[in-house]
Amino acid sequence: MKEIDHLAHERNKAEFDVDAMKIVWAGSRRDFELSDRISRLVANDPAYRKDNRVVLSRKELFKNALRKAAYAWKQICELRLSEEEASRLRFFIDEPAYPDLHWGMFIPAIKGQGTDEQQQKWLPLAQNMQIIGCYAQTELGHGSNVQGLETTATFDPKSDEFIIHSPTLTSSKWWPGGLGKASTHAVAYARLMMDGQDHGVHGFIVQIRSLDDHLPLPGITVGDIGVKFGNAAYNSMDNGVLRFDHVRIPRSQMLMRVSQVTREGKYLQSDVPKQLVYGTMVYVRQAIVSSASSFLSRAVCIAVRYSAVRRQFGSQNGGPETQVIDYKTQQSRLLPLLASAYAFRFVGEWLKWLYTDVIQRLQANDFSTLPEAHACTAGLKSLTTSATADAIEDCRKLCGGHGYLCSSGLPELFAVYVPSCTYEGDNTVLLLQVARFLTKTVSLVGSGKMPVGTTAYMGRVEHLMKCTCDVRSAEDWLKPSVILEAFEARAARLSVTCARNIDKAPSLEDGISELSADLLEAAIAHCQLIVVSKFIEKVQQDIHGKGVREQLQALCNIYALSLLHKHLGDFLSTGCITPKQAALANDQLRSLYSQVRPNAVALVDAFNYTDHFLGSVLGCYDGNVYPKLYEEAWKEPLNDSVVTDGYHDYIRPLLKQQLRIAKL
Amino acid sequence: MKEIDHLAHERNKAEFDVDAMKIVWAGSRRDFELSDRISRLVANDPAYRKDNRVVLSRKELFKNALRKAAYAWKQICELRLSEEEASRLRFFIDEPAYPDLHWGMFIPAIKGQGTDEQQQKWLPLAQNMQIIGCYAQTELGHGSNVQGLETTATFDPKSDEFIIHSPTLTSSKWWPGGLGKASTHAVAYARLMMDGQDHGVHGFIVQIRSLDDHLPLPGITVGDIGVKFGNAAYNSMDNGVLRFDHVRIPRSQMLMRVSQVTREGKYLQSDVPKQLVYGTMVYVRQAIVSSASSFLSRAVCIAVRYSAVRRQFGSQNGGPETQVIDYKTQQSRLLPLLASAYAFRFVGEWLKWLYTDVIQRLQANDFSTLPEAHACTAGLKSLTTSATADAIEDCRKLCGGHGYLCSSGLPELFAVYVPSCTYEGDNTVLLLQVARFLTKTVSLVGSGKMPVGTTAYMGRVEHLMKCTCDVRSAEDWLKPSVILEAFEARAARLSVTCARNIDKAPSLEDGISELSADLLEAAIAHCQLIVVSKFIEKVQQDIHGKGVREQLQALCNIYALSLLHKHLGDFLSTGCITPKQAALANDQLRSLYSQVRPNAVALVDAFNYTDHFLGSVLGCYDGNVYPKLYEEAWKEPLNDSVVTDGYHDYIRPLLKQQLRIAKL
Repeated sequence: MKEIDHLAHERNKAEFDVDAMKIVWAGSRRDFELSDRISRLVANDPAYRKDNRVVLSRKELFKNALRKAAYAWKQICELRLSEEEASRLRFFIDEPAYPDLHWGMFIPAIKGQGTDEQQQKWLPLAQNMQIIGCYAQTELGHGSNVQGLETTATFDPKSDEFIIHSPTLTSSKWWPGGLGKASTHAVAYARLMMDGQDHGVHGFIVQIRSLDDHLPLPGITVGDIGVKFGNAAYNSMDNGVLRFDHVRIPRSQMLMRVSQVTREGKYLQSDVPKQLVYGTMVYVRQAIVSSASSFLSRAVCIAVRYSAVRRQFGSQNGGPETQVIDYKTQQSRLLPLLASAYAFRFVGEWLKWLYTDVIQRLQANDFSTLPEAHACTAGLKSLTTSATADAIEDCRKLCGGHGYLCSSGLPELFAVYVPSCTYEGDNTVLLLQVARFLTKTVSLVGSGKMPVGTTAYMGRVEHLMKCTCDVRSAEDWLKPSVILEAFEARAARLSVTCARNIDKAPSLEDGISELSADLLEAAIAHCQLIVVSKFIEKVQQDIHGKGVREQLQALCNIYALSLLHKHLGDFLSTGCITPKQAALANDQLRSLYSQVRPNAVALVDAFNYTDHFLGSVLGCYDGNVYPKLYEEAWKEPLNDSVVTDGYHDYIRPLLKQQLRIAKL
Repeated sequence: MKEIDHLAHERNKAEFDVDAMKIVWAGSRRDFELSDRISRLVANDPAYRKDNRVVLSRKELFKNALRKAAYAWKQICELRLSEEEASRLRFFIDEPAYPDLHWGMFIPAIKGQGTDEQQQKWLPLAQNMQIIGCYAQTELGHGSNVQGLETTATFDPKSDEFIIHSPTLTSSKWWPGGLGKASTHAVAYARLMMDGQDHGVHGFIVQIRSLDDHLPLPGITVGDIGVKFGNAAYNSMDNGVLRFDHVRIPRSQMLMRVSQVTREGKYLQSDVPKQLVYGTMVYVRQAIVSSASSFLSRAVCIAVRYSAVRRQFGSQNGGPETQVIDYKTQQSRLLPLLASAYAFRFVGEWLKWLYTDVIQRLQANDFSTLPEAHACTAGLKSLTTSATADAIEDCRKLCGGHGYLCSSGLPELFAVYVPSCTYEGDNTVLLLQVARFLTKTVSLVGSGKMPVGTTAYMGRVEHLMKCTCDVRSAEDWLKPSVILEAFEARAARLSVTCARNIDKAPSLEDGISELSADLLEAAIAHCQLIVVSKFIEKVQQDIHGKGVREQLQALCNIYALSLLHKHLGDFLSTGCITPKQAALANDQLRSLYSQVRPNAVALVDAFNYTDHFLGSVLGCYDGNVYPKLYEEAWKEPLNDSVVTDGYHDYIRPLLKQQLRIAKL
């Protein structure tokens, strides 16, 4: 039974070279081979089993995550995996746990904010995992507004120490991953206080648990903050609460790369540019965009394969029913998501390049592109994570009732992904930052300055404010230049309108506050333009393999035209296109769906996901869905006994009308 | 501490009589008092505690649900609660369990499809809970397409029995609630086979478990289908799998109100009109719409209260930060949801009336309004459940990071609600039915017939196709007639455009298939018009209490204008309004937000929910959020021990570099 490929007929329909597409998706042959090798290593090792996650209790789940982390570290050491391989390994293990924060936040914080001396002391300990670190910034009462943190670090010149303290309940550290149960150390953020003066928020390395017996150190109250969304999802992570009661640390444990406190209690700034911090944010956020395409593509892979397996209605003369994927309603929801997965993949790839570029410039003391790069990554973080969270849930709904079962993999995928919309910058807050940057750009352009990078189109704002779209047939919508101009005109017009309306307000801040909902829309339009333009650029690159470019071209057009349809109000109200042209875009979209339909299964095969990584009965490679669903059901603990536990106490007395004497 | 109302300053701002609004929300003083009394009965009884749900294992959760069901039944009997009171009691217990299906599907199925004789035999048993019944329709391979069910019921004239059989794996019954572990009986749907002839799908009462020891009867394989989305959510329900291996039941257990099988094996139709079945569907779906407003209002209540408690940014001179609810971005997402809660409440109330009206007409053999009523309830079921599922998740995001904690109540609310989009008719399938009905209506109007009920506006299609909106100022958008005409024109134009495009297709079915995505949009436009028009009608009724009508008027306008903004593409592309008028609608919307803002907390207080029913730390009545969040964290089982279970096996060997010898 296992040998039959129930989706073979779909795979045979593909009109392109799937292996070549796998390379395009992975970014390079090297990246493909790396991911392929490490994903199989994980998939074939029963120690990384994850199909039982949703039936474990929180305690079992957490303990199991600790076991996997130790096992993985052992494997990393024994196989002498490179940093890149180790990072891929953690990725394919696919279970949030303390190493994510240790490697992803604690170590980078020390690298970014620690002096050379501090790095020499702490990095070897962390990189050998002789200490486990987390990143304790967020507080119970303070999330987005980092400058509002309440924890204090008061310098005591007598002892040459800082006294770390939680003065209020709302100053309790709250949310940091790995803090609750695993970490021995934290980079904790606190207001630096000296001589009663508040020098603002700084980072401090604080040991929180004993390295001997793991007990919290004196003055430390620490624990887990409780169950989160989803059955397993993020519950393998010990997001924590932490309170300091006058905890003393040596002065040397303030991270002093940018500012220092001297032995004498003087506050100094170093000559390291503060902007370096933004470089780190560009890095973290490009990683989030790249993760968005990974999550979205998993959900789409499951939904596409199951839509090809599932049949409903349309049986003729007793023949098989119609494959759900052949319904236009299914296509019009599913294929734009498939296109988005590719779109986000390519914009993520481009962001990696942007990060390298920004860092090179920073090292040459060129800060000119930093605001634009910062706005761009903040906006794309917001756009791609919101779209991905919605898309995973759409994919779940597109799988009908069975998508509601955890064995479909989709409920957990949603629950584990959705905090991305909130962490590392709440998506609404980030979009408002982008919008502020855009209105500034509008006024700079007004004063004759040329905008750079992704805002370069604003330099043509005069043209964009008055250009008219010259689409006359549905095919005209296939021209990249036509799509690009429509998206540029929409983005420019929304930004300019906002800027003009803000000018009418009594003050800039009043205007921004009053028009903030409009500003969000302008920011979204700008970010969508970036994704569309990077997809167009990708398709124009040197692409190998039979039919690969044609598929990407179709997906690019689907991405752009489905956005145009979704945000039609923007395009029409700003006069970028006419209702007639919108109708032609819709006609073209339908024809693109028909064009991509036979390639859909092959296009998700190109993601090269193992069944282990997908973790979905509905999305399994061979499409043998129903027997697997059926088998899966019998693993449910409730089925351990034929007559349910509780029958004698709660069902039998009811059926036998003997409830009056029952103890309930 | 418990005595302080941290939201008192918000409550003092209210410009209307909250007690009067409570009556409007409940529907009548009688309904208010009923709900108030029963909800307090549940909230004050520790037997109905639910705050520990998310830390229970599936087995514990299920057993606890069995206990609550028995306890509730005992209470219903001892307090001699009326059917209405008992139903409210189950509602406020707020935990899915087998009685939902027993009372909501099994008994109604017997009432609707059983003969008088069958009702006399089975109803007393069911109503005394001497048997527990479920509704076994859906199969592993067959959901929406009921006519495609594979289970067979073959008449054996020798023994005067039906042989119920599952011929394939995909014919396994799959999903029925209460089936997995609790039920003794099922109304099972199967294809009636006689003399090799297939008479289509019929309902049969089949006993599945022994009344002596609860063991499955011979030939029955039954169990639970496994874990579903969310921590507790729907996992207190035993959705089941059921296979029949030639199970014999007496002929008398086919539900024979509409069609009969005689002793001789003849298939007869009774004179009971088949349309009665649609009456039942109208009933079930109006209940779903009413439940949508209940779920949506809970989520909105939590998000509004927490948005008034939560402060972030905007501190001036060290004063408190700005309440999140004062940000326009928050208002522009939250207040339309508040308005939707009220809108869905009132359309649900109207649907109750519609059901009564339809039943009265059916009894008088008047089937004239049935298709319209059927389309209307199908469409509203789809519209309100999709909007509510999205809204709950929006509310969760509006609560920032803390919304991701189960103690916020929102993750569970989402997970338990979202299957509503799929069950009792998949939302997309239902909208397509509405769209078909609308295109039919267009062609009827073309041939001179007058449409009835919610499609009456189609009678003015000539006017609606060419009318122009005469809004010239933002205030013009406050006129109900202006709003109504814009929504009518949009709905009519989308339907007519679809109908015209379908006419160009080679066949009706080809056209419907090709244009199905457009048809969905036309159906949504029609359904939104219904909700808007019923809200407008409600506001025009006799409404008591200071300021109540003014608040409802503002909410009605917010509902309509926020929809107009969301679907601006429709309104502009069909030429119903101009871009200038759309901008004025947006201006008006902003001013409505400011008008409702001071009343927001009082408007959710009017739902009269107990803290028990809300089940949310963030939404608690007194707004004392942070101490409660903090307390809640320490209840997490992971915090039972200070040093985590797993430290000695998986953390210590890692820190001490002794993994090589560890067993992992």
